[in-house]
Amino acid sequence: MPTRTIRLTLAAALAVTAATPTLAQPPGIADWRRAHERAIVDELTTLVAIPNVAGNDGDMKKNADHLAALFRQRGFSVETVGGPETPVVFASLDAVNAAGTLTFYIHYDGQPVDASQWTRCQPFAPCLWSAAGAVAVDPARQQFDPEWRLYGRSASDDKAPIVALLNAVAALKATGPGPTWNLRVVLDGEEEAGSANFRRFATARPQALKTDLAITLDGPRHPSGRPTVYFGVRGGAGVTITVYGAAGDLHSGNYGNWAPDPSMMLAKLLASMKDDDGRVTIQDFYRDVRPLTAAERRALDEAPDVEAVLARDFAVARPERPETRLEVKLNEPTLSILVMESGGGLSVPGRSAIPATATARLEVRMVKDLVPETQNALIAGHVQRQGYFVVTGRDPTTDERRTHARIARVDPRGRGSAASRVSMDDRWSQAVVTALTRDGVPPVRLPTLGGGLPFGTFSDQYGMPTVGVSIVNFDNNQHGPDENLRLQNLWEGIEMLASLMTMRVR
Amino acid sequence: MPTRTIRLTLAAALAVTAATPTLAQPPGIADWRRAHERAIVDELTTLVAIPNVAGNDGDMKKNADHLAALFRQRGFSVETVGGPETPVVFASLDAVNAAGTLTFYIHYDGQPVDASQWTRCQPFAPCLWSAAGAVAVDPARQQFDPEWRLYGRSASDDKAPIVALLNAVAALKATGPGPTWNLRVVLDGEEEAGSANFRRFATARPQALKTDLAITLDGPRHPSGRPTVYFGVRGGAGVTITVYGAAGDLHSGNYGNWAPDPSMMLAKLLASMKDDDGRVTIQDFYRDVRPLTAAERRALDEAPDVEAVLARDFAVARPERPETRLEVKLNEPTLSILVMESGGGLSVPGRSAIPATATARLEVRMVKDLVPETQNALIAGHVQRQGYFVVTGRDPTTDERRTHARIARVDPRGRGSAASRVSMDDRWSQAVVTALTRDGVPPVRLPTLGGGLPFGTFSDQYGMPTVGVSIVNFDNNQHGPDENLRLQNLWEGIEMLASLMTMRVR
Repeated sequence: MPTRTIRLTLAAALAVTAATPTLAQPPGIADWRRAHERAIVDELTTLVAIPNVAGNDGDMKKNADHLAALFRQRGFSVETVGGPETPVVFASLDAVNAAGTLTFYIHYDGQPVDASQWTRCQPFAPCLWSAAGAVAVDPARQQFDPEWRLYGRSASDDKAPIVALLNAVAALKATGPGPTWNLRVVLDGEEEAGSANFRRFATARPQALKTDLAITLDGPRHPSGRPTVYFGVRGGAGVTITVYGAAGDLHSGNYGNWAPDPSMMLAKLLASMKDDDGRVTIQDFYRDVRPLTAAERRALDEAPDVEAVLARDFAVARPERPETRLEVKLNEPTLSILVMESGGGLSVPGRSAIPATATARLEVRMVKDLVPETQNALIAGHVQRQGYFVVTGRDPTTDERRTHARIARVDPRGRGSAASRVSMDDRWSQAVVTALTRDGVPPVRLPTLGGGLPFGTFSDQYGMPTVGVSIVNFDNNQHGPDENLRLQNLWEGIEMLASLMTMRVR
Repeated sequence: MPTRTIRLTLAAALAVTAATPTLAQPPGIADWRRAHERAIVDELTTLVAIPNVAGNDGDMKKNADHLAALFRQRGFSVETVGGPETPVVFASLDAVNAAGTLTFYIHYDGQPVDASQWTRCQPFAPCLWSAAGAVAVDPARQQFDPEWRLYGRSASDDKAPIVALLNAVAALKATGPGPTWNLRVVLDGEEEAGSANFRRFATARPQALKTDLAITLDGPRHPSGRPTVYFGVRGGAGVTITVYGAAGDLHSGNYGNWAPDPSMMLAKLLASMKDDDGRVTIQDFYRDVRPLTAAERRALDEAPDVEAVLARDFAVARPERPETRLEVKLNEPTLSILVMESGGGLSVPGRSAIPATATARLEVRMVKDLVPETQNALIAGHVQRQGYFVVTGRDPTTDERRTHARIARVDPRGRGSAASRVSMDDRWSQAVVTALTRDGVPPVRLPTLGGGLPFGTFSDQYGMPTVGVSIVNFDNNQHGPDENLRLQNLWEGIEMLASLMTMRVR
């Protein structure tokens, strides 16, 4: 049977198992949500409409003020900490006879947007779409097709978890005594830009954040659609590489066959970094990878195989390193080219000149034990071994250009963020998995989530029990244009958070 | 002795031979020019200040009207032909007892500009600079340091030859009976964009252009600084190549190690097209190259060796294919990457997503007998042999993306322009060389100039004797930012054109 047929058959089988079992407990949450769908959707829509590109401090201040008001409405006491930069919003709500204290970490900033690429609506003018097209929402409408999607920057990443948490609290209070745990919620406004402000807060105020358990709310669910718990994050590192041709752009007719072609040099340099299957060929790149434990391997074996679903949904005939499942590969470092540019880019009309330079922005995702500086240094070492004279933080001098046939500038992209991974086996991890198990079906358990969020602040800096929970749909286009949230994921997110806020730990 | 020392010694030697012998004949021209320097510089400055990016028809119309007025002032009868697109300007001036008729081809459009890259002044706000810095020109100044340079788009390419021609006519009339040949001057306003309007004119009005000899005025002088005659042009072809990853941009953390990386795929594809020395490895790419004749090889041997000058001036430690001289390599096809782009380019802030596509704009320069369509097809065939499913003129369908692991869209970039080359040996070629010989030193004779101008309209379509003459400095940055003209080249250009307009043919 040809591969394609196998894949489609698998995809059909998965389409059935992908239906999430009903989250029935704690009782009454789903009913409460059904009665409040309109208010919840409006709350998220209003929040997404506040522009939140990380680093735009003015916009971020508006988000922070709006969020503080929302948490106060639900009975939290709120501090906004930091400024004039983007503040951290810190909200506390205590329970009567609390079982203990949970800290939730969520971020409210979003990735930069190229509005011209958005096809549904502008990134900060959110809109609802069904599979059939745009949905004009009647002012009287109270309920929504759960398959409809809300489009807008941060609809999924990471404002949906904020609205899910707010409404889980409201639902628990409306249907019973409220959360059985004291809650601490820390909202980071710079997660997409290095979390500097959160890190300062974490260093200054450990008492505020060090509790019984930290739960980070970020990232997509596993593509099977099942609730997903993760026990680590990939972090991030990376470099920008520029290679140099002649001292200026040169007429391609007069100097073609003579002028060095920096785009071609860069192409060859990048091509030397991975084999045809996508395995990184930079010396020692995988050296420090910590092997998976038996429990981690078992959890990955139990995760539904979604290779065929991914291949179909993303129209990919062959992924990188096709012999290994995505869930396993998340536990190995990556090397991706985020940006290439030479000649001023495609927006420049046809200019017949060989450019003077060519540049690529490379990103590394890591796993526990890998260090951003080390991975970046391995890349720079590789560039050097390809015969390049390497400079950092400056352009080469004219004399250096006259002396070295191959020159590369290799600059680290910011300070990077470390990867983390905690044990799946401790009682806190077990309690979270149990709280999210429905009808005997446990959540998908991933040793490592793709994102770069500061999981390690809790797990490594504080040494706290830490887990991550994913709520949003896997095909949410986060970081790209047309980011979206499937409404059913928001409904289930409310139920999942209500379960966590009332969970039992042995 | 290390290579670098040899090169610098050669460069020092060349600095002496590079001094152009005084152009002393016809008599009186240099004196006339010295008396009119201010008016000539003002004339060129005013002309350069009219924006002329090819394709901006409104701007081009202003250029055409201004040029028509300038030629009428010198006694030409003028037609502007074509519209509403960019017109061709055709100017005629007859001589008493004319030796025959010469047709001069010049273009008045320029390459696109990225004003942010210009460091001396804006592209259409021309300025004068000395080696020491910007020169503020006193209103009373009548003469100029010949080493000063005028900066602006088309200061060299190709408005300088227009002003040189106008003033050669004025000088000949002021110092004697005027040109001894009837003159036909055709000014192309779309040379940088395919010359469609000129081609229509050439097809409709062969009587206007078919004369005894065509002289194209374009391109830089040989880097030795000597007057330069060329007998062919490289033409141009090329393709745009896009390769495809997943159907959308994917979060690099969640999908890194799984999502195909189109930038990396493109890098590998491009890297397969040239060896490390810059020799094209695409099958049959050099197949149709016509070998140089004995006369051509001799002419190239006689051209000063400027490799060391180029290396120093352009800060290049090792050119492509360093075993061969530039002048020889101009007679072989080129493959240059003009533009690479993925991830929206460097102007997009750090977005952590693996792009869905990556694109490169490739250019081919040719030589006589190579055909744009054939060279483009050789590239597409090479892409196919690298395992790519190739589409043209459209994006791949979702089904195609699900089926083929490697997909490339390969689109020809316009219709291209053919290369041309005529004999160096005929009496017309000899007459031009003789007219430009000074103190026994002949001009540099190149079988092929780098540019893509429609030399072949005259040499191939009309079957006319055709030669090209270069006036401007080799380091004029044409097609790039900071395009400039060394004033001494303008002065000598006037003398060269006066010589051509009074030349004798055996």
